[in-house]
Amino acid sequence: MSTWVPVPEGSGFGVNNLPYGVFSQRGELPRVGVAIGELVLDLAELANAGLLADRRWFASGSLNGFMAAGRTVWQPTRDRLITLLTDMSYRDEVEPCLSPVADVDLHMPFEVSDYVDFYSSREHATNLGRILRPGSEPLLPNWSHLPVGYHGRAGSVVPSGTPVVRPSGQRRGDQGPVFGPTTKLDVEAELGFVVGTPSAQGQPVPTSGFRDHVFGFVLVNDWSARDIQAWEYQPLGPFLSKSFATSISPWVVPVEALDAAHVPPPEQDPEPLPYLRCAEPWGLDVTLEISINGHVVSRPPFAGMYWTPPQQLAHTTVNGAWLRTGDLLASGTVSGAERDERGSLIELTWNGNEPLELPDGTTRAFLEDGDTVRISATATASDITPIGFGDVVGTVYPSPS
Amino acid sequence: MSTWVPVPEGSGFGVNNLPYGVFSQRGELPRVGVAIGELVLDLAELANAGLLADRRWFASGSLNGFMAAGRTVWQPTRDRLITLLTDMSYRDEVEPCLSPVADVDLHMPFEVSDYVDFYSSREHATNLGRILRPGSEPLLPNWSHLPVGYHGRAGSVVPSGTPVVRPSGQRRGDQGPVFGPTTKLDVEAELGFVVGTPSAQGQPVPTSGFRDHVFGFVLVNDWSARDIQAWEYQPLGPFLSKSFATSISPWVVPVEALDAAHVPPPEQDPEPLPYLRCAEPWGLDVTLEISINGHVVSRPPFAGMYWTPPQQLAHTTVNGAWLRTGDLLASGTVSGAERDERGSLIELTWNGNEPLELPDGTTRAFLEDGDTVRISATATASDITPIGFGDVVGTVYPSPS
Repeated sequence: MSTWVPVPEGSGFGVNNLPYGVFSQRGELPRVGVAIGELVLDLAELANAGLLADRRWFASGSLNGFMAAGRTVWQPTRDRLITLLTDMSYRDEVEPCLSPVADVDLHMPFEVSDYVDFYSSREHATNLGRILRPGSEPLLPNWSHLPVGYHGRAGSVVPSGTPVVRPSGQRRGDQGPVFGPTTKLDVEAELGFVVGTPSAQGQPVPTSGFRDHVFGFVLVNDWSARDIQAWEYQPLGPFLSKSFATSISPWVVPVEALDAAHVPPPEQDPEPLPYLRCAEPWGLDVTLEISINGHVVSRPPFAGMYWTPPQQLAHTTVNGAWLRTGDLLASGTVSGAERDERGSLIELTWNGNEPLELPDGTTRAFLEDGDTVRISATATASDITPIGFGDVVGTVYPSPS
Repeated sequence: MSTWVPVPEGSGFGVNNLPYGVFSQRGELPRVGVAIGELVLDLAELANAGLLADRRWFASGSLNGFMAAGRTVWQPTRDRLITLLTDMSYRDEVEPCLSPVADVDLHMPFEVSDYVDFYSSREHATNLGRILRPGSEPLLPNWSHLPVGYHGRAGSVVPSGTPVVRPSGQRRGDQGPVFGPTTKLDVEAELGFVVGTPSAQGQPVPTSGFRDHVFGFVLVNDWSARDIQAWEYQPLGPFLSKSFATSISPWVVPVEALDAAHVPPPEQDPEPLPYLRCAEPWGLDVTLEISINGHVVSRPPFAGMYWTPPQQLAHTTVNGAWLRTGDLLASGTVSGAERDERGSLIELTWNGNEPLELPDGTTRAFLEDGDTVRISATATASDITPIGFGDVVGTVYPSPS
């Protein structure tokens, strides 16, 4: 399958990917587009030109309408886009609908309904347990029986590029808590998925229902203030340490685009309860990459995640909670076994005690004002062109106080 | 101030209250109304008749548009409604816009953006600590320094009357976790407030900003599955034990309606950090009432809540997190010092060990299928007619599995 669009060598945006996003240019209203190579294909224009069946979903400032339409719409749309981009006979009609990504503004791709964050890397949960609860068993007894997760603040999910202002809050001090800007601003590199098709109240979605409900994947940076977190999180979990910003990538990679990247996930012992068993191999051979000011500091492997996306979805709904279009479920920090595979600074620097040395001669225990963090990811399967994700980028601004 | 509308003796819906809701009748589209006595005043009709300035906010299936308009709209609207309902000269014009509440359907009054639940009763937090962490200090060190809270599932907030299906999930068993319908289904009686005017990213809202942003109050029943909660909640907080349903009352009591019910809150020791200090006395002399199948089992006093609504709002935003119209912040379970003032069954029955005896001869450790729970509340200030809240009601349906 090859496209007539020039796709640079090594681009993760070949015709086997076709991630969806929302963009605008020249002061026009935002609309839905698809990334191909270094270009964006305007789906609203394509529909106007009679090349796509329905315009109403695409002349929109969010993907929610299209996502709500369900797989019976997503699949023929994707098939049609592949035809338009591979069949030379469409080239003259389609080319006017392409613009360089560099010339457009990318927006928040969808409106988030509920945001759930998991804790599904055994290595991450073990590292955090060792750091935050030294002297006790790092993994709590429930961890290996269910994908531990919690609700985050949906309103604070922002698109890549949004400035991240250093948050203030309470942290533990020698004579009781002190208030001020966090001194332990951190990142969490994660992969998230977004729900398209809603489910009904009281009707759990089985692991086999993942493809019926989930539209695609994004990268997530779940910015965290570790000193605020350590003081506030018991007994009801993280709150202000996370709710100031969660950044996502601008492009939503369709579930089908990752089909060739499936690998067997780690063996699960003890065997999960029946509702968490999954017939399909839902490990994903995706490697994330975290860089600070252009220096790569970690390459976390998603393939090692203990709890998989279908298990996370089945768990979220097993109590009868229902899905809405726009629900975002994130994996939790992706960490591998090696030091340079850890997905957060608290792990990479062991709570600041082993600062990172950057090639520019500076060191980092946690993030400093002015730092720019970029998370990227690539799905590599032996038989396909690599599938890229849009980068999620954020620069730290000083606290105004 | 007296109204020409007949308001029965003891009604909490006098002209000093005027709570807002969304209703429909005779198959017509839902619109915004205000409760007065046993009637509902149709604001869309009132606007159609030229008696209210703006129609677009009221011919709507949710209060969000009106709530987003801000206090400079809420205040003159309320003043105008009071005039229309107290000045006899408007009676002939207004009367056609009144319908018996009994003849209409009440709907979800607003769309919830983010839902935050606090833990602000010292008595409740102490009881839960004793029950869930026996042998250790019941209140954790952070509790008296900040209003502990967490994000709940916004999509599961449902209006009074919605059936509550007994959720299934994992709970602790002798040989590892077991799966099945919860055996410890509980209620939590709470008071919540809803945000009207949004705030800006990175701009904390001080305690003095409460009236600028908050539209009104509702009753909340934060249904809880205690066995699921005990197994899942560490280290990231409650998830499935709460996310199956949270019920709210159909009427939103305006902030101003409660002005005469303010009382000094409990003394706070240690003194809170500056951002949590509050000049106004924001205790509220509101007494809740929980009944099961018509039998009153508790009367929790909101006046004793340690952390107040303005403190909860200031805390939520102090890290730069911003408010959206429709954000719902609930107090956490309201419990008083006496046994018959506890706001949940886990406290009333001490985790099921001391079952309640109901006047019908049955006992309850936790809720049984078919039970109907009703939470009501009244604000009593010496110088005003009592202010009522719409009841929040729910009946437990058996698990389908």
